[in-house]
Amino acid sequence: MEIVILGTSSAAPTLRRGLSGTVVIREGETILFDCGEGTQFQLIKRHIPRRKFHHILITHLHGDHIFGLGGLISSLNLSQREYPLHIHGPRGIARFVNFMTGFPRPTKLGFEVRVNELSPRFEGVVYEGAGYRVLASPLDHTIPAIGYRIQEHDLPGRFDEEEAERLGVPFGPIRGRLVRGETVTLDDGTVVRPEDVVGPPRRGKSVAYCLDTAPCKGSLRLARDVDVLIHEATYADEFEGMAHDRKHTTIRQAATIAHEAGARRFIATHFSTRYDGPAIARLEAEGREVFPDLIVARDGLRVEI
Amino acid sequence: MEIVILGTSSAAPTLRRGLSGTVVIREGETILFDCGEGTQFQLIKRHIPRRKFHHILITHLHGDHIFGLGGLISSLNLSQREYPLHIHGPRGIARFVNFMTGFPRPTKLGFEVRVNELSPRFEGVVYEGAGYRVLASPLDHTIPAIGYRIQEHDLPGRFDEEEAERLGVPFGPIRGRLVRGETVTLDDGTVVRPEDVVGPPRRGKSVAYCLDTAPCKGSLRLARDVDVLIHEATYADEFEGMAHDRKHTTIRQAATIAHEAGARRFIATHFSTRYDGPAIARLEAEGREVFPDLIVARDGLRVEI
Repeated sequence: MEIVILGTSSAAPTLRRGLSGTVVIREGETILFDCGEGTQFQLIKRHIPRRKFHHILITHLHGDHIFGLGGLISSLNLSQREYPLHIHGPRGIARFVNFMTGFPRPTKLGFEVRVNELSPRFEGVVYEGAGYRVLASPLDHTIPAIGYRIQEHDLPGRFDEEEAERLGVPFGPIRGRLVRGETVTLDDGTVVRPEDVVGPPRRGKSVAYCLDTAPCKGSLRLARDVDVLIHEATYADEFEGMAHDRKHTTIRQAATIAHEAGARRFIATHFSTRYDGPAIARLEAEGREVFPDLIVARDGLRVEI
Repeated sequence: MEIVILGTSSAAPTLRRGLSGTVVIREGETILFDCGEGTQFQLIKRHIPRRKFHHILITHLHGDHIFGLGGLISSLNLSQREYPLHIHGPRGIARFVNFMTGFPRPTKLGFEVRVNELSPRFEGVVYEGAGYRVLASPLDHTIPAIGYRIQEHDLPGRFDEEEAERLGVPFGPIRGRLVRGETVTLDDGTVVRPEDVVGPPRRGKSVAYCLDTAPCKGSLRLARDVDVLIHEATYADEFEGMAHDRKHTTIRQAATIAHEAGARRFIATHFSTRYDGPAIARLEAEGREVFPDLIVARDGLRVEI
């Protein structure tokens, strides 16, 4: 699994930071979180193939998170796409997508855009993918906002071919029984327990994406034991009051959520334009007091899980 | 007067070419033609101050010419703008602007957006600026499209202070009469004609902007004796049929318009994505057969008039 952060500025772009958008690439599929203006440019710049998009997950309906949808859909259409595109987001997203694809006249796209509107309090599974599922929890912003988590399915432990060979476990159904957790007795009377030849179950990888939001239970829930938490960190301590009023998060608050939820890694993003430049160091320092290994995102950042 | 071409791709962006947008900078004012997705990024990248925007001129309502409006207006609002922004464009542009600024909820902007809708057949003066006017003519595209021309007012010839001194022309109203074209007789009987001390009238500078369009009379009219014609040149000869069907122009056709209209310079732009790379040289060569000094636009191109 690889994360590519496309844009890291809040509200308005700067010379170095574009608007919100992040992709998660896994086994031939690319999942896009948010689609601010310029997302399709970032995808080209970062060499992310658009033909592998099947799902776009929108957090909320502010322009800096959705104004790139019209252009992206139009370009997908020009690229002769034929299979459906699923867009998930808070109620109202269908009206936006319909307007953008239907202006100035209704247009027949070469592929289907299936919009899945979620209620503001939606909590649960958004969809089941191949080998993973996407979960959602409500966030706490000035308009309804939804956080997401991509959760890969756990996989059974690896089968130790060499050890099985040594113990004389024959090929065939007997190996399947061991993988499924059964103890077996071989023809020569040898008892083989699953743990002799099967490693520990492999935990599915996970990524949580929480913006825009004030510190809230939804973020904490999505971030629980997650491999990577991507959380907004719009302000430094100096603007904690403003963060509160505008339903955003300081980096210290976001780091606290990452820490309390037991997130393994934490990527901070969605910075106020006032931190475009050296001032970002102050933000970073404040976050590190709580979560020492945090990553301050920049446009184009790639993180492997 | 300076022209900055922001985006030069048609329909979809490429690694090197963004979507349509061009600014003309003159005496403290910046006029924007079209506003494709990413225009606000290009403005930042090219160091073009947005506070000097008063007028945006939209040619037509296809997404690659307007999808940047929502983000630009939002960013202007965040920058504490207080004075009005005028957006001129074909009928329907108001619906688009209203939707983008009113989604998901009606928002109170800190400044007024005044939309001036033009009928598809509009021909004439769009507005009178300070020292210039903007003219429009209909173009010929798959949906109503309008071409524009910025025309600076002609200025009277320069007054030759040195020659006036030599001839003994006193300061005061007598000089004004000469500037206005009167012949005067000085107290000592010397007859001074205007052409003795006043240079030839200075022709106002002009820029015409014609995209998207098939070759048409509107372009020809706007381009008449213009200093710089910016004209779409989506295809090379090989796709003349496609250009015709989709109401676009080949570079040879655009160069022919520039030549026939007597345009002093011609900037070709709005290239099909298939010419992103070395193939652009073929396009350029075809245009040069008709208009040898044409300029093939690239993103960020600056041209002084």
